[in-house]
Amino acid sequence: MSDTIFTRIIRGEIPSHKVYEDEHVFAFLDIGPLSKGHTLVVPKEPAVQLDQLSDAAAAAVGRVLPRLCRAIMQATHCTAYNILQNNGALAHQAVMHVHFHIIPRFDQTMESGLHLAWKPGKLDPRQGTELAHRIAAALATS
Amino acid sequence: MSDTIFTRIIRGEIPSHKVYEDEHVFAFLDIGPLSKGHTLVVPKEPAVQLDQLSDAAAAAVGRVLPRLCRAIMQATHCTAYNILQNNGALAHQAVMHVHFHIIPRFDQTMESGLHLAWKPGKLDPRQGTELAHRIAAALATS
Repeated sequence: MSDTIFTRIIRGEIPSHKVYEDEHVFAFLDIGPLSKGHTLVVPKEPAVQLDQLSDAAAAAVGRVLPRLCRAIMQATHCTAYNILQNNGALAHQAVMHVHFHIIPRFDQTMESGLHLAWKPGKLDPRQGTELAHRIAAALATS
Repeated sequence: MSDTIFTRIIRGEIPSHKVYEDEHVFAFLDIGPLSKGHTLVVPKEPAVQLDQLSDAAAAAVGRVLPRLCRAIMQATHCTAYNILQNNGALAHQAVMHVHFHIIPRFDQTMESGLHLAWKPGKLDPRQGTELAHRIAAALATS
């Protein structure tokens, strides 16, 4: 994949408000925050979507998320937050390098720039069984 | 924490459309799907929010996400998807056991039950520097 702004931030070519770095992961404040403390957690391994990321890099990001969440909670006094990771333009991915958003949520007196509208359907049991088998079969051959 | 419906699903006391299971992780179709293939990825370790999950359990969930995403893409033919993980009622958490949603997105001809409205602010550089230091300091002592 080609370099993105995140590649350049990881390399230190573009300044960022860094909060954490290790061998595999780089985390910094989003400059277009949806709320106070909105943080981006980026694997150093270059991959556009999560499905293209190595198991090791994905595990490294997963491992550090709880610690980062605790630190953001402590620094911002939020108690609620969303983790959001968008893949593909249809899913609102804007920078084509895998990144996890940590988005603190505060009570109604503090506006949040993230609004989630959730309209669930109902899983048909027969179709669910068929689809679960199809996904499990795809896992077995991947 | 007290048992949730997910604890009972993991134990097999309540049936589910399971797609994957290993020592640390259990994944199954959401019965209130936002789109075809909407899957829940749940650590077996009981924790309400991600900030309460052990590093090892969080790493195990992270490690398996790319494989699960590839299998869901293969089974549903989606190319875009969101990963969403909600912590706290203010952040739309409904079941009080950590879970990651994988929500496939399709083109406009197929309706999605997930709508994300994104209204970014602008990070003040001085406040950003101060906040990043505060989060980094919280990480160092955690």
